[in-house]
Amino acid sequence: MDTITKRMRAVVFDGSLRFEANYTVPALPEGWALIRVRKAGICQTDMELMKGYRSFRGILGHEFIGYVENCSDQALVGKRVTGEINASCGKCALCRKGLGNHCPERKVLGIHQLDGCMADYCILPVSNLIEIPRSLVDDRAVFIEPLSAACEIIEQVLFEGNENVVVLGDGRLGILCAWAISTVVEDVTLVGHHPEKVEISKWRNLKTGTNRDIIKSDADVVVDATGSSSGINEAMSACRPRGTIVLKSTVASQGDLNLAPIVVKEINLLGSRCGRFESGIQMLESYPDMPLGRLITASYPVEEALTAFERASQGDALKVLIEMR
Amino acid sequence: MDTITKRMRAVVFDGSLRFEANYTVPALPEGWALIRVRKAGICQTDMELMKGYRSFRGILGHEFIGYVENCSDQALVGKRVTGEINASCGKCALCRKGLGNHCPERKVLGIHQLDGCMADYCILPVSNLIEIPRSLVDDRAVFIEPLSAACEIIEQVLFEGNENVVVLGDGRLGILCAWAISTVVEDVTLVGHHPEKVEISKWRNLKTGTNRDIIKSDADVVVDATGSSSGINEAMSACRPRGTIVLKSTVASQGDLNLAPIVVKEINLLGSRCGRFESGIQMLESYPDMPLGRLITASYPVEEALTAFERASQGDALKVLIEMR
Repeated sequence: MDTITKRMRAVVFDGSLRFEANYTVPALPEGWALIRVRKAGICQTDMELMKGYRSFRGILGHEFIGYVENCSDQALVGKRVTGEINASCGKCALCRKGLGNHCPERKVLGIHQLDGCMADYCILPVSNLIEIPRSLVDDRAVFIEPLSAACEIIEQVLFEGNENVVVLGDGRLGILCAWAISTVVEDVTLVGHHPEKVEISKWRNLKTGTNRDIIKSDADVVVDATGSSSGINEAMSACRPRGTIVLKSTVASQGDLNLAPIVVKEINLLGSRCGRFESGIQMLESYPDMPLGRLITASYPVEEALTAFERASQGDALKVLIEMR
Repeated sequence: MDTITKRMRAVVFDGSLRFEANYTVPALPEGWALIRVRKAGICQTDMELMKGYRSFRGILGHEFIGYVENCSDQALVGKRVTGEINASCGKCALCRKGLGNHCPERKVLGIHQLDGCMADYCILPVSNLIEIPRSLVDDRAVFIEPLSAACEIIEQVLFEGNENVVVLGDGRLGILCAWAISTVVEDVTLVGHHPEKVEISKWRNLKTGTNRDIIKSDADVVVDATGSSSGINEAMSACRPRGTIVLKSTVASQGDLNLAPIVVKEINLLGSRCGRFESGIQMLESYPDMPLGRLITASYPVEEALTAFERASQGDALKVLIEMR
């Protein structure tokens, strides 16, 4: 394949969002793979990037499934894959400690200095790729990245199972967090503002509510997945003394915030970002009844990406997909 | 003693600070002790209370040493004591779990619904009192409360000894935190704004600096004891990915704050408040060379309390004492 002359479709953000029919296919560095993207998901982080987070410019998108089109490892070509989004340097002190996700030199797919996956092709280091098991259909596999991020909470908080957990936020991530935690904890409550999303979130023993009054100040663990600047205040109020808050959403600004309750209640606040894809894949395989289909609000061809983003920004939307068909 | 008619001197905050020569001695509830105060310390929290924190009204002060004047346990009368400042209900779920310091019904000496110790007398539950060993002279014993708060960090963060720790803030609490941590960790750096305070802080292997440029972004643990709203931003910048920030100071407002670094760097933020007095006493006894005398800026008779507070509010001040002589 001649990547020098080949052109592709792409969803580009350069201060405003636009669809490009004639974008250059990226060159393939040594040790990287060229991936023909099949589906990409719109994530809250994409919305934050468009508000100025990280001053990102380029092709958006970091949730995808696709097929390996070209790479030095011929055995991989043609495989259905998804990929870890952090392309680290592999040489610095953090990389050597296995913390490549925090490498200061890292590029991040569709987030930082690396074009994303809302295009016919994207590139990632071969070592970032994970083959998707045949047991997972495309419309479940597309949740590997966000579900892995939800599973990260289980790896950070060592739940005993008898905790009282509150998840704030009825968006995609909030629901996935609540579902992931409810596989290991009995008493989980999801609280959101949107009755239709809260309804969709019902699975297993999950308790739900739209009225924040149902939250007392006795939660052992509170997950803030609101994506809103008021979430942390609600979390501090819901959390019991010496409890844990997991901060899951990056919002561009938190506004006027008083952290005194963290000190007075001696709260443990954990920042939580990406997860290991193995965890997400394992959970998808272990829980074939996890109703992920309910989370797909709509799917648009890449040419209609602007409409897709508009749909994703509406209050009732959950996961909106973009397809390179 | 007739507590009904007895009057006392007191430092009262009711929107403004004043000295009262003729305040009523508090009545003694069942199970409480009346303490004749000898010395009281001015703390940053007192400054915050005067700015509106907790809407406190009454006698200020929560750091003290004194003598038991009256209580049901005759063996205690005459003993030199200090006391835990949280007077909890003893009955609620948190109290039953041993978390009385977080009891929602608790009164807090000189901080919440209970007159403080900057007076001839104060009261506390007998169970809050701790006898001060004879080995500790008054001017060391007066540091039991703040040093215990510093020791709390050692109980929350399980240091291995080879960490790289940065303490932000060269006030009393910052210095005590740095000293306490330096008894268990080799590589501790205190960073402050005031050259004279930073000079005073030098003890054991403690590294010091006044220029924030000496901080890299690789600290395993950062303690924010700045008492300033910008401290948390500096702490997030100094902390390595997956590191720990200990938030030690309650500031009335944090201003415009963006917690995204907590999520992106997956930082563990620990709120840290009071400590167990046994820890502070033990450290004072184990480290007789801890140069606490350097931290006493001045000592004023209670009648000159307003001058004492003025002195304590100056940038170069460390611990200012008030004496009931």
